[in-house]
Amino acid sequence: MKRILIKDLPQKIGQKVTIAGWVNSRRDHGKIIFMDIRDRSGLIQTVVIPDQEEAYEKAKKIKNEFVVEIEGKVKERPGETTNKAQVSNVEIEIENLKIISSTKEELPVEITKENINLNLETLLNHRSLILRNEKIKSIFKIYATLLDAYNFIMRQNDFLEIKTPKILSNATEGGANFFKIKYFDRDAFLAQSPQFYKQAGVSVFERVFEIGSVFRAEPHFTTRHLNEYVSLDAEMGFIEGFEDIMDQLEKVITFIIKEINKQHKKEINQYNIDSVSIPKKGIPRLRLDEAREILKKEMGKEIEKADIDPEGERLIGEYAKKEWESDFVFLTHYPVTVRPFYTMPDFQNKKLTFSFDLIFRGVEIATGGQRIHDYYQLIDNMKKHKLDPNDYKHYLDIFRYGMPPHGGWGMGSERIVQKILGLNSIKEAVLFPRDVKRLTP
Amino acid sequence: MKRILIKDLPQKIGQKVTIAGWVNSRRDHGKIIFMDIRDRSGLIQTVVIPDQEEAYEKAKKIKNEFVVEIEGKVKERPGETTNKAQVSNVEIEIENLKIISSTKEELPVEITKENINLNLETLLNHRSLILRNEKIKSIFKIYATLLDAYNFIMRQNDFLEIKTPKILSNATEGGANFFKIKYFDRDAFLAQSPQFYKQAGVSVFERVFEIGSVFRAEPHFTTRHLNEYVSLDAEMGFIEGFEDIMDQLEKVITFIIKEINKQHKKEINQYNIDSVSIPKKGIPRLRLDEAREILKKEMGKEIEKADIDPEGERLIGEYAKKEWESDFVFLTHYPVTVRPFYTMPDFQNKKLTFSFDLIFRGVEIATGGQRIHDYYQLIDNMKKHKLDPNDYKHYLDIFRYGMPPHGGWGMGSERIVQKILGLNSIKEAVLFPRDVKRLTP
Repeated sequence: MKRILIKDLPQKIGQKVTIAGWVNSRRDHGKIIFMDIRDRSGLIQTVVIPDQEEAYEKAKKIKNEFVVEIEGKVKERPGETTNKAQVSNVEIEIENLKIISSTKEELPVEITKENINLNLETLLNHRSLILRNEKIKSIFKIYATLLDAYNFIMRQNDFLEIKTPKILSNATEGGANFFKIKYFDRDAFLAQSPQFYKQAGVSVFERVFEIGSVFRAEPHFTTRHLNEYVSLDAEMGFIEGFEDIMDQLEKVITFIIKEINKQHKKEINQYNIDSVSIPKKGIPRLRLDEAREILKKEMGKEIEKADIDPEGERLIGEYAKKEWESDFVFLTHYPVTVRPFYTMPDFQNKKLTFSFDLIFRGVEIATGGQRIHDYYQLIDNMKKHKLDPNDYKHYLDIFRYGMPPHGGWGMGSERIVQKILGLNSIKEAVLFPRDVKRLTP
Repeated sequence: MKRILIKDLPQKIGQKVTIAGWVNSRRDHGKIIFMDIRDRSGLIQTVVIPDQEEAYEKAKKIKNEFVVEIEGKVKERPGETTNKAQVSNVEIEIENLKIISSTKEELPVEITKENINLNLETLLNHRSLILRNEKIKSIFKIYATLLDAYNFIMRQNDFLEIKTPKILSNATEGGANFFKIKYFDRDAFLAQSPQFYKQAGVSVFERVFEIGSVFRAEPHFTTRHLNEYVSLDAEMGFIEGFEDIMDQLEKVITFIIKEINKQHKKEINQYNIDSVSIPKKGIPRLRLDEAREILKKEMGKEIEKADIDPEGERLIGEYAKKEWESDFVFLTHYPVTVRPFYTMPDFQNKKLTFSFDLIFRGVEIATGGQRIHDYYQLIDNMKKHKLDPNDYKHYLDIFRYGMPPHGGWGMGSERIVQKILGLNSIKEAVLFPRDVKRLTP
């Protein structure tokens, strides 16, 4: 008989059906055996009584996480719900039971409880088992919606999806945080971002976006860094100023949040966290020097370096929440010293740039800005940054034959999900995260 | 004034507008200067007469591929079309002209002709300029639709989108074609496929798909190999047999082809190639041994090795076209010797496997099959393949705690587009391709 998904069972009352899935839990009440069965669509209670001899004998051997196929009749649930089955108004009376796959040993962790209170290392060591937990699974349902929402809104705004190479000949952007590869008989590097290629994309298609892996050889041990992550990139031409980029990003993030709130009420509720709020007036935009002032005056925090530190971002996030009821805030006009060579300087103050970070609940989730589109200005700026234009021949080629004013952003997909759910570590928002020490599972 | 997209100009007849874009071509007719302007939405003719002194003087300096902003009046086009402007019933009479960005030198290649007849190396060396050609741009519009269609149909079929790590601790699958990375103080490897991780995905979500970069250190110089490409992966649990996987893949590829044919008639027509056909009865499925017989009997080609070679695939593709009017054909039941250790052996003939390749116009575009889901059978099979199960601890963990029968496929996105358009080399279907010799641009 064809397998029926658990979510469709309420339409099958009185009928004989076949379901298949994992045994979420087994409970014996006197001589009756109850099993909650879990498939991708839901959870349902099944019952087997001793009269069903063959099935009953098999059921006695069953442990949590066995994979089973069950044939039986769908019945309305008598009386109260004794479990947390999601499809709660029906149950199945088992007639035939087939064990498809058993567990090889005791489960090293209990995964059916609502909250798994284990330390991060344990969560990650037993990753594929732990992921079966309903609350943890929710993270990745939300993550999948984030990817889809980004794809949708970018296309709707006329951005073309592109895929660009992750293996590069140079460690460009002048940074040190590149992983080196042995590429046949020479060295190559893993892309830190699709920056140069998405700018090339602008020279052809005006507006491009990419969802792709990026790699950072940063030796950080923090709750917000990964050595490999999925970046949501975009780049757009014919802008009038870098405000256009923030406007576009605001549209995108607003759509994403709206979609996730709409589609994942249940999943978010498991995390006991407020749903994300973006004020109707839009996301507040603060110049970095204004932010400094606020931090000093309102929160007694002095920032000495040119860049704002994570603690400063956290505080400014708090301030935005208190002041404007916004979970997001743009910080703008970063100094040239903390931005890459291709960033457009502020026309009015050459020490600053037309750049921004987007802070979400106190963490930077996106970085962007306007780029230099003039060939000669770009070469000049490379020199100012002590870079040799000869190392950037292929990049400079993009600017030789007519390039419009443009800019874009890179956004960390995992951080968005982390902050929506209030996860302690970003690694919880990744199926199989990589850090300095961890390359398995 | 706010920029108007060229495609929207027919709605603006009689109005003054601002457009911006690249100068696709400039032609002087007596004292009148005509310029075709190109933006992301289309191509339009503009005219400037000597009376518009300021604009006219600027126009005289303009060369192809300059970026300009034009203010002027939209008029219905008088008389015949003298150019190939796509928005052909209107033109703009220029009143103001602003040069936003100029070209630094003569264009090394002419990009406005319909067909660029240059060798592949030249096409790739001047990549970001060459990509501006309308016909070449079409490849990537189709590619973007392919990505979107795959995303759509997979979600509609209840597959969850996942992203899995590209940096691995081991060169798994026993293959040699891995790129090695320096990962902090140790070695690591770039993923050849998301195989193990998508199987882990099945153990949690039943059905998963991934669109992601994969890396193959294969020293090939062919028209169908890349060292880095974008793989369309899927894996599904609770299958009854490997036919379920082919059924699903057939649904997916049928949808993709239908979408591309529907959305890209114009783009495909540029390539003078028949649109792809899938017979109503479905994609024919041939056992590999049947295919051998056919090749021998009908085309006089004898295959000596266990696997079918590219020439054999080409011939069987021809046969499928002639016999069933199908551009696709599944080859099934490959010998165990040419499939990885995790492939499910055929119950009836242990020398064969429940595996398949999907051939599209004579080229393999997807490989798939059922996987072994039993922990002990998997260990046995590793040993048969001379692999040490201790090297696969994390992979084996997936099978310890209840795993349903499952399988899936990996599909090369670039090959699909290559064969739809009949491109000579797969590198033409990649924005910035990588091969043994090429890491730039």
